[in-house]
Amino acid sequence: MKFTKMHGIGNDYVYVNCFHEVVEDPVGLSKKISDRHFGVGSDGLILILPSEIADCKMRIFNADGSEAQMCGNGIRCVAKYVYDHALVRKNPLTVETLAGIKTIELYTKNERVCSARVNMGRPKLMRPEIPMVGAETQVVDEMLVLNENTSFRVTCVSMGNPHCVIFVDDLKQLHIEKDGKAIEHHRVFPERTNVHFVKVHHPGEVTMVTWERGSGITLACGTGASAVCVAGVLNNLTERKLLAHLPGGDLELEWVEDENVYMTGAAAEVFTGEWLL
Amino acid sequence: MKFTKMHGIGNDYVYVNCFHEVVEDPVGLSKKISDRHFGVGSDGLILILPSEIADCKMRIFNADGSEAQMCGNGIRCVAKYVYDHALVRKNPLTVETLAGIKTIELYTKNERVCSARVNMGRPKLMRPEIPMVGAETQVVDEMLVLNENTSFRVTCVSMGNPHCVIFVDDLKQLHIEKDGKAIEHHRVFPERTNVHFVKVHHPGEVTMVTWERGSGITLACGTGASAVCVAGVLNNLTERKLLAHLPGGDLELEWVEDENVYMTGAAAEVFTGEWLL
Repeated sequence: MKFTKMHGIGNDYVYVNCFHEVVEDPVGLSKKISDRHFGVGSDGLILILPSEIADCKMRIFNADGSEAQMCGNGIRCVAKYVYDHALVRKNPLTVETLAGIKTIELYTKNERVCSARVNMGRPKLMRPEIPMVGAETQVVDEMLVLNENTSFRVTCVSMGNPHCVIFVDDLKQLHIEKDGKAIEHHRVFPERTNVHFVKVHHPGEVTMVTWERGSGITLACGTGASAVCVAGVLNNLTERKLLAHLPGGDLELEWVEDENVYMTGAAAEVFTGEWLL
Repeated sequence: MKFTKMHGIGNDYVYVNCFHEVVEDPVGLSKKISDRHFGVGSDGLILILPSEIADCKMRIFNADGSEAQMCGNGIRCVAKYVYDHALVRKNPLTVETLAGIKTIELYTKNERVCSARVNMGRPKLMRPEIPMVGAETQVVDEMLVLNENTSFRVTCVSMGNPHCVIFVDDLKQLHIEKDGKAIEHHRVFPERTNVHFVKVHHPGEVTMVTWERGSGITLACGTGASAVCVAGVLNNLTERKLLAHLPGGDLELEWVEDENVYMTGAAAEVFTGEWLL
């Protein structure tokens, strides 16, 4: 089976062109192929398929075999693959996902896609939507107490998944593993939460580090960067257009007046391979 | 550039056939290609080259770009590659390494190598050879004190690199990260040490977990398994022939009368690829 390894600022998947290949057991294959020592090694498996209702369709399987709805870093790579390999040569390109049809704007260089812009959807801000325990109110710059010695001022946003955003003065003074894990499991978040520590350099630029729910510290979190963009505006700390530096690379965010957040970032092909079945 | 991803019980490298390919900057390539998110992802890069004095030659570059002398798990894969791809169709096969010429016995199934036996060399047992501070004596079942609450009975062996072997009753009751790191950096080991916790099931079979110097907990350590075989004999706990279960798979060890340790284990090809330069 032929495959292509691609990443969006370090969020890496094995991509299989199912216009040509057949994958009979994507759950089993994802678990096997994602293993970083015994397999190809990746955050999961993404199948690129024909669609009846869009230019193509993507199915995302995490490394544990579970199917994901959407992945902002992955969909840019899908669009790059489909365009570069001339499966569908359109710009913008539409991609069918479990979270609906997404429209991707492509930026090309020498006829190949180098980055792409994705509509990440509308943020949800009310406690029950995030979800957080409590009344139908927003959580902007509210105190979250971990224990008698530690508390943070947090802003919470759902981008389809829960995010807790904390603005800090110094990213080097943090205990990300300890505090990230404690916040993830805080009783106020019934479905746990992703946690982002953010340093604002100026209203158009931030650096962020992420404690991802169930994964720990990660290189890139697209929904998280979108949530940070929203949280910055809600706190009057940042503008609606934002450059975010993540450990794996940069993302450009924009929370536009129609309420959707748009994310622009790189998509890269690393190598092609033949998986020995 | 074409490559093949192979592993010996989870110790995985990118292998390049330099009978056909030219690698101009192996140090830079190893750092780049070994990255598990932005590259192919591996413990390092192994070049398979023609040799003037053996059937082939291997050069091993760790993920940090440093060149290694030898790797017991890697050399089995080199032998498999050379034999399976008919670069040299001999059994046994000789491989030139920075640690000298090694002779590899091959075990085949359907004309392909499935496992191989490697001479891991003679153990060195005297403190200055390991190295450990102190007089010209062996360290067999000696007390090593970490702090007022923690001490271990240790046996120390060099297989070209230092190993500290600790026999335990229950592998589940350990604090491998904390104690492994403390032993690695104990002042008695001037060049630090690898640490192995070993449960003896019966004189022919053990399970071991390894804290590798500079790497932490790893799936497989070939020199470490060899050292465990020697330490078991020195403590009258195990026989000269030993089956060792490691997290990444099994190794068979034999400390023979000529004083060399022989290691037998699997070698597997996972996928082939084309690295986009």
